[in-house]
Amino acid sequence: MATEILFGINTAEEILKAGRRTVVRLVISRSEKSQRIKDLAGLARKNGVRIEFCDQRTLEKLAAGGHHQGVIIETEPMGKLDVEEAVGLEKDLKKTVWAGLDGITDPMNLGAIIRSAACMGVSTVILPERRSAGLTPTAQKAASGAVERVNIVEVVNLNQTIIKLKAKGFWVYGMDMGGQALPKVDFALPAFIIIGSEGSGLHAKTREHCDVIVSIPQKGGVESLNASNAAAIVFYELSKKI
Amino acid sequence: MATEILFGINTAEEILKAGRRTVVRLVISRSEKSQRIKDLAGLARKNGVRIEFCDQRTLEKLAAGGHHQGVIIETEPMGKLDVEEAVGLEKDLKKTVWAGLDGITDPMNLGAIIRSAACMGVSTVILPERRSAGLTPTAQKAASGAVERVNIVEVVNLNQTIIKLKAKGFWVYGMDMGGQALPKVDFALPAFIIIGSEGSGLHAKTREHCDVIVSIPQKGGVESLNASNAAAIVFYELSKKI
Repeated sequence: MATEILFGINTAEEILKAGRRTVVRLVISRSEKSQRIKDLAGLARKNGVRIEFCDQRTLEKLAAGGHHQGVIIETEPMGKLDVEEAVGLEKDLKKTVWAGLDGITDPMNLGAIIRSAACMGVSTVILPERRSAGLTPTAQKAASGAVERVNIVEVVNLNQTIIKLKAKGFWVYGMDMGGQALPKVDFALPAFIIIGSEGSGLHAKTREHCDVIVSIPQKGGVESLNASNAAAIVFYELSKKI
Repeated sequence: MATEILFGINTAEEILKAGRRTVVRLVISRSEKSQRIKDLAGLARKNGVRIEFCDQRTLEKLAAGGHHQGVIIETEPMGKLDVEEAVGLEKDLKKTVWAGLDGITDPMNLGAIIRSAACMGVSTVILPERRSAGLTPTAQKAASGAVERVNIVEVVNLNQTIIKLKAKGFWVYGMDMGGQALPKVDFALPAFIIIGSEGSGLHAKTREHCDVIVSIPQKGGVESLNASNAAAIVFYELSKKI
């Protein structure tokens, strides 16, 4: 089994709580004495997960420079889901919001978007293989464990996915300039909301496939929101519907 | 004059456009040939700012490890404003939203919050000197130039500032757990909205000073939004009022 080395207290905690992946071991810095770390060790023991204590240097090496907070977790990668399987997991499509990312290349932004998705009830995030950051340890750390609470579906072609989802009854919304003002959009569910990159917005072909283009009204000229903040705002509006 | 070394294309562009600070020099990597960098050099020339071209290594050194994108700008620090001066800059208090930060210690979060503030029409951000990240070059880079479009007021004591602002007619809102659900809050202006830290929310004393505690309804258990995403969402709701 190929495993991955992830880091961060929240990440480890959520993986252990969710129980979706087989965990190989939890590695804890010998110098960490906080209650949260003790609770984490307790959780690992309860789940029969091997715990190793090591020095700070070994941890630094394992985390490869990542912000580990004294905790490493070695685990099998997330199980792969396809679009049909993820649709099958929905109990009520009339209460379903999914998000798709188009050109989000920064792993910190990717992680923050997955975290907001989990908080706002977005159940699945679609990641195109190209033009997008992958689910690296850094992205998973930024997601603060939310990867365990959201279904992640990697697809080859975002536009093909849009066509599939439309056939299943999804309404497709794209975040980009020059669209309807977000507070005035009357979202219909199931909704698939596509977040573009900060610099260049949605790709032209993707934009064509959207039922509605949605824009966040902004004050003060050329400023533009960070992609993860724009995603948080639109997820928040959508969460009012579910 | 003590100067500061800032970096990033947007940061340099916004400083040159805003003209709020005296710029000592713009330093550009010799290997940068993009149109945006050329436009930036043109803008500097128009403003009579000295341009220096240098090698990548000198740039790395100047930026001290920061993500410089081939551009350094040396400038005088932001002019200091106090609360009274910032209030004096407002044209219409009935259209005024200010934000205060309570315990935001991550410079990336601080920068992202200032960026969202600028996008959403929040005109002043109050930074307590203690328990808060400062306006470091990293924070200013994360703000993507928005520091030039928002008034930043550093205060010694956030609670004293709340008392001052209340005397000037501000309504004080605090983001924290266990408050009124954001979509149901009928904000009154001028508004002062206080963003707490992710982990621990508002400090108890600060919470006591708020007129209304506001919470973002979240799905799915213990998840909590990143502080900058929570700020973006509440700024967005407030921007509907201005």
